[in-house]
Amino acid sequence: MKKHNYSAGPCILPQEVFKEAAQGILNYQDSGLSIMEISHRSAAFVDVMEEARSLSLDLLGLQDKGYKALFLQGGASMQFLMTAYNLLNKKAAYLNTGTWSTKAIKEAKLFGEVFEVASSKDKNFNYIPKNYQIPSDVDYFHCTSNNTIFGTQIKDFPQMDAPVVCDMSSDIFSRELDFSKFDLIYAGAQKNMGPAGTTLVVLKEDILGKVEREIPSMLNYKVHLEKDSMFNTPAVYAVYVSLLTLKWIKNNGGIAAMEKRNNEKADLLYKEIDRNPLFKGFAEVEDRSVMNATFNLTDESKKEAFDKLWKDAGINGLNGHRSVGGYRASMYNALDIESVKVLVETMRQLEQQS
Amino acid sequence: MKKHNYSAGPCILPQEVFKEAAQGILNYQDSGLSIMEISHRSAAFVDVMEEARSLSLDLLGLQDKGYKALFLQGGASMQFLMTAYNLLNKKAAYLNTGTWSTKAIKEAKLFGEVFEVASSKDKNFNYIPKNYQIPSDVDYFHCTSNNTIFGTQIKDFPQMDAPVVCDMSSDIFSRELDFSKFDLIYAGAQKNMGPAGTTLVVLKEDILGKVEREIPSMLNYKVHLEKDSMFNTPAVYAVYVSLLTLKWIKNNGGIAAMEKRNNEKADLLYKEIDRNPLFKGFAEVEDRSVMNATFNLTDESKKEAFDKLWKDAGINGLNGHRSVGGYRASMYNALDIESVKVLVETMRQLEQQS
Repeated sequence: MKKHNYSAGPCILPQEVFKEAAQGILNYQDSGLSIMEISHRSAAFVDVMEEARSLSLDLLGLQDKGYKALFLQGGASMQFLMTAYNLLNKKAAYLNTGTWSTKAIKEAKLFGEVFEVASSKDKNFNYIPKNYQIPSDVDYFHCTSNNTIFGTQIKDFPQMDAPVVCDMSSDIFSRELDFSKFDLIYAGAQKNMGPAGTTLVVLKEDILGKVEREIPSMLNYKVHLEKDSMFNTPAVYAVYVSLLTLKWIKNNGGIAAMEKRNNEKADLLYKEIDRNPLFKGFAEVEDRSVMNATFNLTDESKKEAFDKLWKDAGINGLNGHRSVGGYRASMYNALDIESVKVLVETMRQLEQQS
Repeated sequence: MKKHNYSAGPCILPQEVFKEAAQGILNYQDSGLSIMEISHRSAAFVDVMEEARSLSLDLLGLQDKGYKALFLQGGASMQFLMTAYNLLNKKAAYLNTGTWSTKAIKEAKLFGEVFEVASSKDKNFNYIPKNYQIPSDVDYFHCTSNNTIFGTQIKDFPQMDAPVVCDMSSDIFSRELDFSKFDLIYAGAQKNMGPAGTTLVVLKEDILGKVEREIPSMLNYKVHLEKDSMFNTPAVYAVYVSLLTLKWIKNNGGIAAMEKRNNEKADLLYKEIDRNPLFKGFAEVEDRSVMNATFNLTDESKKEAFDKLWKDAGINGLNGHRSVGGYRASMYNALDIESVKVLVETMRQLEQQS
């Protein structure tokens, strides 16, 4: 039975990526060796790393614009720390749109003053604050483009002089943006880019070198840049599978095509959430995430019946995060629209049963 | 043609591990899903993490002795930083036996005074210093059990009251030791334990909480312990493949059996290095590593001929590190003695040609 994987992350990746990824473990490019047993300094793996770094910039439209790409370890959680360690001299501005922003703020406070420009905590983060003021004297502004847990997504990013740092873990490579408006973008791989265990960091080199503290080697972007993302042994296999996924994105029309598919999937699901009286959306309509749709039953007594319907249909990972409850449908790049049709069908079946 | 993989790391893992690892990518335990696309909070993956943590302690004989195991990201290089961040109040003692010790010392100096108890730098780290004094007032003593680059290995560890911290990246699970003499052991997975991308940390909880500085969440052992090694998304697949490798060690007789095999392999190779007039060992005989044998040609003009011989025999990864030159045969747990016989045979062929 075909599975429809709505997991919020780690999550679905393209089936052809899984096939090539498995082949690479048994015999990488007919070398007679596994991709997991070759040196990270071998020509074969250096090629993987360099192609992954370059293709990331290509897809984002940032090639030859002063940006470099790194594949680091530690996830976005390590970037909460590294961004502040490297960039926060005195004061930084943070937009608080949920759990991950809150965690980023906590780490940044170890290194300087954090000015929270706005927060949507008053309504359990079900919207994106707007019309906030960013002080002119901040070292940078930090925001989270998509809030996996609450199902909200920033549609318009503020303009400013200070560097813009953005956690794009859950929507990178999913929609077209003018990425040159950002000075540092980071993203844990395990949504649209690859398996858990590697983190893409794309940054403008000219934002570095402005803090006075000594930065430990592993936390220092300059050190990683100087060593072409190979200061120490990288997460070889996670970078390899990320490269396979990036190639799949490119071969399937790049970010523009991903965005079109993602909008179609989200439209289909949100239309049903709004039409079907048994469901209501959690996030404010204008701030709804195209990646993660959060919704609840209007009548909690139907939970058992609905859970049986979607589980019987081969759907996996639909339970909402404990902070929100209800359901969360994560519709990353690799999720087929057929899977959304199956989910919508179970929602209609619940209505027919009622 | 069968490959004989002498890569220093990432390196050979058991063939059956590769087979099961590839199967897990296509269909994990008949779930219809890839191990890479399931949530790290799913029961299936929580089981993997818990079994890997527990089996690590079992194999080391540290179960129920006040130790906990963590699987973190960032490699040993991140542990150079984390050990000092968490344990270094005023002064720590370090034994300098090579490149990795030197790097650990560099990071520790950001957090306090580092007293280098001894160094073998005077002879390009070809021996292990002995009879050094460790001051009684240090927060901990740090050493590197096996020096991958130089091919030396500590056979006797000093006794002391202060906590002993040991980087066992390149020989963990390869030999029997009284592991309860150590208070914190760390090891990047990519030698005897699994693929690159995860790092085992085994520590006694009572050594924590003795420094006053604020420790960022991702660098704080206490935070990772409280969250059972799932503070943030772990390197799911690297932990899974590590578990497969740990099971292989257990099913093949545990560390005792690994040590026996490893000693047989090392004896065979070192005997040939000592017998064959065309070769000389790099490390002092008494400090030779069972994992990494470093050796040079006595007549450099034979380099081309020898390189052709071993490459034609299907041997991979035999070139020495640039700091030492010559050759390095890394004979980790998964390397079969047949591969050592093939290498010894090429060394004899070179002699016969001469």
